[in-house]
Amino acid sequence: MIHEYLPTQAELAYTFAGRDPVGEIKPGQVWQIWTEDCFNGAVTSVDTLPTAVCQFPFLNPVTGPFHVDAAEPGDILAVHFAAMRPARDWGVSSTFPHFGALTSTHATATLQPALEERVWLYHLDPDAEVVNYQARNSDFTLAMPMAPMLGTVGVAPAGSEVRSTITAGAHGGNMDTPELRAGTTLYLPVAVPGALLGLGDGHARQGHGEASGVAVETAMHTTLAVDVIKNTPLATPRLESRTAIMSVGLARPLEDAYRIAHHDLVMWVTELTGLDTLDAYQLVAQAGQASIGNVCDPNYCVVAKLPKPCLPNRDVYGAVHKGLEDLTARALSEGT
Amino acid sequence: MIHEYLPTQAELAYTFAGRDPVGEIKPGQVWQIWTEDCFNGAVTSVDTLPTAVCQFPFLNPVTGPFHVDAAEPGDILAVHFAAMRPARDWGVSSTFPHFGALTSTHATATLQPALEERVWLYHLDPDAEVVNYQARNSDFTLAMPMAPMLGTVGVAPAGSEVRSTITAGAHGGNMDTPELRAGTTLYLPVAVPGALLGLGDGHARQGHGEASGVAVETAMHTTLAVDVIKNTPLATPRLESRTAIMSVGLARPLEDAYRIAHHDLVMWVTELTGLDTLDAYQLVAQAGQASIGNVCDPNYCVVAKLPKPCLPNRDVYGAVHKGLEDLTARALSEGT
Amino acid sequence: MIHEYLPTQAELAYTFAGRDPVGEIKPGQVWQIWTEDCFNGAVTSVDTLPTAVCQFPFLNPVTGPFHVDAAEPGDILAVHFAAMRPARDWGVSSTFPHFGALTSTHATATLQPALEERVWLYHLDPDAEVVNYQARNSDFTLAMPMAPMLGTVGVAPAGSEVRSTITAGAHGGNMDTPELRAGTTLYLPVAVPGALLGLGDGHARQGHGEASGVAVETAMHTTLAVDVIKNTPLATPRLESRTAIMSVGLARPLEDAYRIAHHDLVMWVTELTGLDTLDAYQLVAQAGQASIGNVCDPNYCVVAKLPKPCLPNRDVYGAVHKGLEDLTARALSEGT
Amino acid sequence: MIHEYLPTQAELAYTFAGRDPVGEIKPGQVWQIWTEDCFNGAVTSVDTLPTAVCQFPFLNPVTGPFHVDAAEPGDILAVHFAAMRPARDWGVSSTFPHFGALTSTHATATLQPALEERVWLYHLDPDAEVVNYQARNSDFTLAMPMAPMLGTVGVAPAGSEVRSTITAGAHGGNMDTPELRAGTTLYLPVAVPGALLGLGDGHARQGHGEASGVAVETAMHTTLAVDVIKNTPLATPRLESRTAIMSVGLARPLEDAYRIAHHDLVMWVTELTGLDTLDAYQLVAQAGQASIGNVCDPNYCVVAKLPKPCLPNRDVYGAVHKGLEDLTARALSEGT
Repeated sequence: MIHEYLPTQAELAYTFAGRDPVGEIKPGQVWQIWTEDCFNGAVTSVDTLPTAVCQFPFLNPVTGPFHVDAAEPGDILAVHFAAMRPARDWGVSSTFPHFGALTSTHATATLQPALEERVWLYHLDPDAEVVNYQARNSDFTLAMPMAPMLGTVGVAPAGSEVRSTITAGAHGGNMDTPELRAGTTLYLPVAVPGALLGLGDGHARQGHGEASGVAVETAMHTTLAVDVIKNTPLATPRLESRTAIMSVGLARPLEDAYRIAHHDLVMWVTELTGLDTLDAYQLVAQAGQASIGNVCDPNYCVVAKLPKPCLPNRDVYGAVHKGLEDLTARALSEGT
Repeated sequence: MIHEYLPTQAELAYTFAGRDPVGEIKPGQVWQIWTEDCFNGAVTSVDTLPTAVCQFPFLNPVTGPFHVDAAEPGDILAVHFAAMRPARDWGVSSTFPHFGALTSTHATATLQPALEERVWLYHLDPDAEVVNYQARNSDFTLAMPMAPMLGTVGVAPAGSEVRSTITAGAHGGNMDTPELRAGTTLYLPVAVPGALLGLGDGHARQGHGEASGVAVETAMHTTLAVDVIKNTPLATPRLESRTAIMSVGLARPLEDAYRIAHHDLVMWVTELTGLDTLDAYQLVAQAGQASIGNVCDPNYCVVAKLPKPCLPNRDVYGAVHKGLEDLTARALSEGT
Repeated sequence: MIHEYLPTQAELAYTFAGRDPVGEIKPGQVWQIWTEDCFNGAVTSVDTLPTAVCQFPFLNPVTGPFHVDAAEPGDILAVHFAAMRPARDWGVSSTFPHFGALTSTHATATLQPALEERVWLYHLDPDAEVVNYQARNSDFTLAMPMAPMLGTVGVAPAGSEVRSTITAGAHGGNMDTPELRAGTTLYLPVAVPGALLGLGDGHARQGHGEASGVAVETAMHTTLAVDVIKNTPLATPRLESRTAIMSVGLARPLEDAYRIAHHDLVMWVTELTGLDTLDAYQLVAQAGQASIGNVCDPNYCVVAKLPKPCLPNRDVYGAVHKGLEDLTARALSEGT
Repeated sequence: MIHEYLPTQAELAYTFAGRDPVGEIKPGQVWQIWTEDCFNGAVTSVDTLPTAVCQFPFLNPVTGPFHVDAAEPGDILAVHFAAMRPARDWGVSSTFPHFGALTSTHATATLQPALEERVWLYHLDPDAEVVNYQARNSDFTLAMPMAPMLGTVGVAPAGSEVRSTITAGAHGGNMDTPELRAGTTLYLPVAVPGALLGLGDGHARQGHGEASGVAVETAMHTTLAVDVIKNTPLATPRLESRTAIMSVGLARPLEDAYRIAHHDLVMWVTELTGLDTLDAYQLVAQAGQASIGNVCDPNYCVVAKLPKPCLPNRDVYGAVHKGLEDLTARALSEGT
């Protein structure tokens, strides 16, 4: 059985923490959850500029928060993403004033004029598994592989903070990494009772770094299940797939995102292998992969990845990833 | 008449927003407010390590928040600091694990061992106006000029966020700039009704950049008055003294803090002088001064400063600074 | 016919420019060139510390420079790498004092003690195409895929500069990207008559970012051919493979390396597709890939990559890549 | 007696190292040396755009190099600046395409249009000791204090490198700090026999950070004398005045310039005081000052400064600063 949750517009959240839960998710359940796109679904044509229809702070809505009964401060919340499917046959992207990697921003502030604000609509073809790019100023078109992901998944932050869904940190949030795709388990540190999970910002696909600040944004159906790892500290979000373990670094400048991710991965490897710190550093330095998430959000994102064949013991966190994979696979094969 | 507020330990706050006000401050009133040091007053000897007596998130307490009745979203809150006086005859500093400019941190993460955690106690001599440094591993002593300042002053952030008092941003917060001293007016953008002003983190003195992550921390008596500038946008905190106007940049990397501060100052100068953007840029580029606040906090701080003699029209914000200076001077000359 | 060049130790170079050529390479020729490892071959056991046997500036030697007769300032030198094969059955890696991504350095200077200097020897098995990791403080071993690459390839810099082979810039140099592998053509801007090509710093494999500062270093046999693209400006090195075009960004902080690479790739795409700048930006933002080269050298490296299927016209630089690929394939099939 | 050197245009240098000396300076001699402005004196009106009359790499010329006979690798060259006097009654500033702190650059590359290139001419009044700013698009004028300094002073770099005079590093170069003014002694590490001193890039004044990328540029008469401190390592340039010791940090990002400067100053303080590292760190953290040089050049500049009253023993480098101060004072009082 798959539980479903489809929020109304009014039920969407724009912060992590600071709101009452919209529901309860229990370990052992499988849920299909609908999320709106980062523009609240308001940018529906190339003539609709985001700045005309979106008003700070009502950007990047997440669905939730969901209370996870078993989750208490000091635990890890494991969220397994079994499936992600665009909920519309179109996606949208844009340039956005003072946002993106190749423009000045409010932080990298310059005196130049802003880039033109321009919108692109993409036709999404789930059968062909492509997203169709159409240039605005020529008849150039290109079919790109569909590669659904969620840009924003997080829980309530530590220290009684309430954070905008635009930001990312130890609590997750707007990480904007293509690694957060179906088949992956995300590990987040629980800071408040019930964890308060929220998710949104679906991308039909995204380049590395989200260079223009905006991916192919779309509403999304996400199938997920959760579990709780008791009394286990976690410094920064982690990911696990069938083939790799990953640590997520979120910071500016970008080298600090790289450092956080790789430091965490080295420490994780020492735990999983018994190697001492320098031997684990050496292993990660030669076998490690790095994947750039975003270079546009308040905190940039780098993911440090180690292929599982590097690990003699692949029983990470008591095989919670495998358990959730199996659970959701059974539910999906049974259907709703 | 000077109103006074002396909080109990339990009344201290560790976030901006997220709490009920502890009182109301009205324009026209003068207040003397007591603030605790960044360690909650718990580090009282060189043998008391901060990590032994302080527990995240109970660090860097602020007094408040105070509700300012006239302040509404879209206004600017002007806070004039008429006097700052250490409330104890001692101050304390330390190294702190993974905090400071010359150590690895959780963000600039390295695999080296942490620096030794060491505490220094300073005798504060208000008559001589000095703070006395005593080396820990030799009999070297040095009397340095006392130069009281507040590290942390802020209001509720925009977008329904609640932020730790360790952080800084458009709402102010842990800016840690020595420019925030007596004689200065701080301008902050109001994001919620009543603004919700909090202040704390007094320093008997601080070097530029707060290199070790910790200044000469002390409880402080601060005399202040507030005013409200209606319907005036403000992108980042600003300061005004008798001799200069200043814009505060808060970001990582440090060059973005520099850019934010100087961009804002250039824009401010265009408003005050009628110069076009490039002419104002040129003026700031040759006459401007820059002052490094902190290079250790979650957001680094650079202050861009222009001496008032550069401005033909010195009637900034309707001379609110002069008005508050006069108001507090009268109250201080009358005493409490 | 394949020309060969095997330098003596005394013929190795430690700068780009500043030396007479060791030979002439002509377009149409195929060369096999031997390069020494970054430690001058001096670190031959785990008990030989690099700092004991290597002395600045005699690190990271390159073979060359080679004069390319047809190359004149304003041209592009195309260097196609047809094959790379370790010249020894062992490689070596290490930590290095104050060098690497997860340690303080002379630039990210901290007061902590340096990391332990430790050496790892790898057995290279060309038949199995693996490099064998052996932990130093346990019996953990791991066979990783062999993935030969050159860390350092460059020409004489512009502006009469002479640069250490440790550095990278518009002239190429110590880019340390795994993208510089067999099958790739590297484009470099010619600044002096003859270009003065040098190459070295072979890696049997390297993780993304070269986290420890040192890859699996080894002497290398490289088979290459060159061509000259006349009167064509080039702002930063570019790469081409059978499947992708790539721009190389070299800078600190790491986001500037990302920006340089992606800015250049967007501009290149406008030339190859006729898209206007924003349409090309959008294409790169969604279809682009980013690959981290190094996060340890004087200039960090990010490579921006666009798969060739995104380009309707794949005739880059008059198909020089294909020409060199064919030329070297013929030579390799004929043997020496 | 004061020796004089006035180069022809053809004798100017655009690199550190890579050229034969133009003369010999001996310890004990006092020299007055003329330097051209950063535009080769070619921008003489507001209608002359720098990009129209200046061609890379022929920018930022230095006078020299001068051979200092006693200076050998491993020594420190001490250069005392006794007087700096603009050699013209005008100075010039500008915006420059893709150069400056508040514009995108070739490194912080964006897709926005470049800022307008605009020139400002300043009248220099040596009697009133002011430089006169005249806005371009209004009749706003402002007299600012004259504050002469040299932007660029350096020696041949280590490792056989030849560096453009635009860059800065351990060898000095284009540091662009207002601390390099008359009354200051600059310490540079000698890397080649004779040191090969060059100087130029005079500024009638400069704001902190050189925000627009260009100060009030002018030809300059500089009176200086040199001395050599034998066999003394130096990691980064240092400065000494009558009132302070200073370490110069040159790097990107700006926090690394801060770190280099403060790390070096802490180490210097341990040598001068006998304090252990952490006690010296604490002293610098509370008593230290930081001064931003440039936030526009290839390496940004932060100067860490400690007032001499903090040092019980002020006999820095055997009082070479005082010796040079006395030597030049005598020569200046005698005249040429």
